[in-house]
Amino acid sequence: MRIAVAQVGGIQLSETRRAVVGRLANLLEQAADQRADLVVFPELTLTTFFPRYWYDDAAEADRFFERSMPGDDVAPLFELAADRGVAFYLGYAEIDPRGRRFNTSILVDRSGRIVGKYRKIHLPGHAERLDDVPAQHAEKRYFEVGDLGFGVFDVDGVKVGMCLCNDRRWPEVYRCLSLQGAEVVVLGYNTPVFVPGWQEEPHAKMFTHLLSLQAGAYQNSVWVAAAAKCGYEDGHHMIGGSAIVAPSGEIVAKARSEGEELIVADVDLGLSEIYRTSVFNFAAHRRPEHYRLIVDRVGRGEPVPVSFDQPPVTTAARRDA
Amino acid sequence: MRIAVAQVGGIQLSETRRAVVGRLANLLEQAADQRADLVVFPELTLTTFFPRYWYDDAAEADRFFERSMPGDDVAPLFELAADRGVAFYLGYAEIDPRGRRFNTSILVDRSGRIVGKYRKIHLPGHAERLDDVPAQHAEKRYFEVGDLGFGVFDVDGVKVGMCLCNDRRWPEVYRCLSLQGAEVVVLGYNTPVFVPGWQEEPHAKMFTHLLSLQAGAYQNSVWVAAAAKCGYEDGHHMIGGSAIVAPSGEIVAKARSEGEELIVADVDLGLSEIYRTSVFNFAAHRRPEHYRLIVDRVGRGEPVPVSFDQPPVTTAARRDA
Repeated sequence: MRIAVAQVGGIQLSETRRAVVGRLANLLEQAADQRADLVVFPELTLTTFFPRYWYDDAAEADRFFERSMPGDDVAPLFELAADRGVAFYLGYAEIDPRGRRFNTSILVDRSGRIVGKYRKIHLPGHAERLDDVPAQHAEKRYFEVGDLGFGVFDVDGVKVGMCLCNDRRWPEVYRCLSLQGAEVVVLGYNTPVFVPGWQEEPHAKMFTHLLSLQAGAYQNSVWVAAAAKCGYEDGHHMIGGSAIVAPSGEIVAKARSEGEELIVADVDLGLSEIYRTSVFNFAAHRRPEHYRLIVDRVGRGEPVPVSFDQPPVTTAARRDA
Repeated sequence: MRIAVAQVGGIQLSETRRAVVGRLANLLEQAADQRADLVVFPELTLTTFFPRYWYDDAAEADRFFERSMPGDDVAPLFELAADRGVAFYLGYAEIDPRGRRFNTSILVDRSGRIVGKYRKIHLPGHAERLDDVPAQHAEKRYFEVGDLGFGVFDVDGVKVGMCLCNDRRWPEVYRCLSLQGAEVVVLGYNTPVFVPGWQEEPHAKMFTHLLSLQAGAYQNSVWVAAAAKCGYEDGHHMIGGSAIVAPSGEIVAKARSEGEELIVADVDLGLSEIYRTSVFNFAAHRRPEHYRLIVDRVGRGEPVPVSFDQPPVTTAARRDA
């Protein structure tokens, strides 16, 4: 399987959906020319990363959402992909038929059929307006927590799991996908250099992004392919660093710019198999009876008491006596 | 809190417990001279890494186990630590009063009192003898799976979690400790360069070791301190790479040799707090209702079906019609 990651440069508020889809189509053509089987696009690919803006009436943000997929503006991308026989992953803002809003991604197979959907579960940021910040990060305002779980889907014979942006920092995500046999995990992200609240050093943004992908790949014996929307959107800066990571944890391809760029790697699914039958043979080594806290607690709590044979009198106590 | 990691060079079959404890005491003295509060020793610190050897009668391996802690040979280390007011973590092979055998570690506070015990849960390797290999990795033969869970203990006012060696590659471990409020995670390891079965490239052994520590620290907002027993034991080679990692995921101290070496770092517990109240505010962001598979499955299984609104006719299908 050959995977292409389509890193997408900043999308301005003034850009039309049609113009954006034209840019994506251009990247998809390049991927097809390089005989890619699957193209990974970013999160919220069709518009600017609008959760950085505050709209007093949240419905004002509805123009960033899709009510059908593909709608008229996006249909040409589906048609092109089917014409070229390329599967793809695409993130976008979704209003579903119930009127509920999600940060969503889909998997479309090489025939143009939507074969998988994911709605983002780990929404970062805040729901309330913050004062005196250059940008909001109001995902918790504009989106509900996803209601589809972490799914794994058959894309032209390969088991592909999905997540979105902040999900990649949470080890539970890769684990839930890997436990369903995922061979490849794909994701898009918009990671701003500025985040309201405490600031990491700029280099740390890239480091923890890559660290999370690499650990997820290694500890779960999966390939990970991550696509950034990056660079400047109306003056707001986002990191690049799109990457493809092997089950060894090693980065095999990485974007070098903060703009439109395609990276490609041949994904040897046999490498996953080597890890999952040795060091990460889950059936042989995992001990879920000791993992209960992961589902029994949400936040941090007090230590669970442990009973062990305490020597009645320690050496030091004897000496003091 | 100042933490010292005492990396210990290879221990030969011919060395006595008393000689080994003398080496540990020397390292503990160095740590105390540098005003360390806690010294981290390796896994199975008191003997060679005996699971590389096969004994037809497993009881032959009993000489590598401790029946009491501290026994007469180890008591001087407890006394020295109490004299110098230094807490420590120590890994050793334990036969408990029931006659059960575990790969165990303890936390001893600055007064010489055993305040925490852990028995290794993720035992790597195999239980059956392998033919035609230069070394066995028979932890599953010599040890039972630990029965104490992942505990967090108060060590002189700091919440410390423990694990051992292969545990560090499993994200569930750090998560269970972090959910109990661990501020520091300490561990010892014996990582052989040769492992029966498929071989990673030598550099990958060090890379995945550090990757696992760094991801565990970052994703759980904890400090991680890991101590190697390393170098050559009767000709068998183990990696070094003892390290102290900050909650940022960055390595703040690292051993440079494969022999006896002390590394020291000042651990700012406030840095944990910054991460656990922002990006890794578990109470705000975790979604355990979607993590069920982590405890419901041991090994990998089939994908769980996901129901989503499938467009009745896709664009491509319309075009083909």
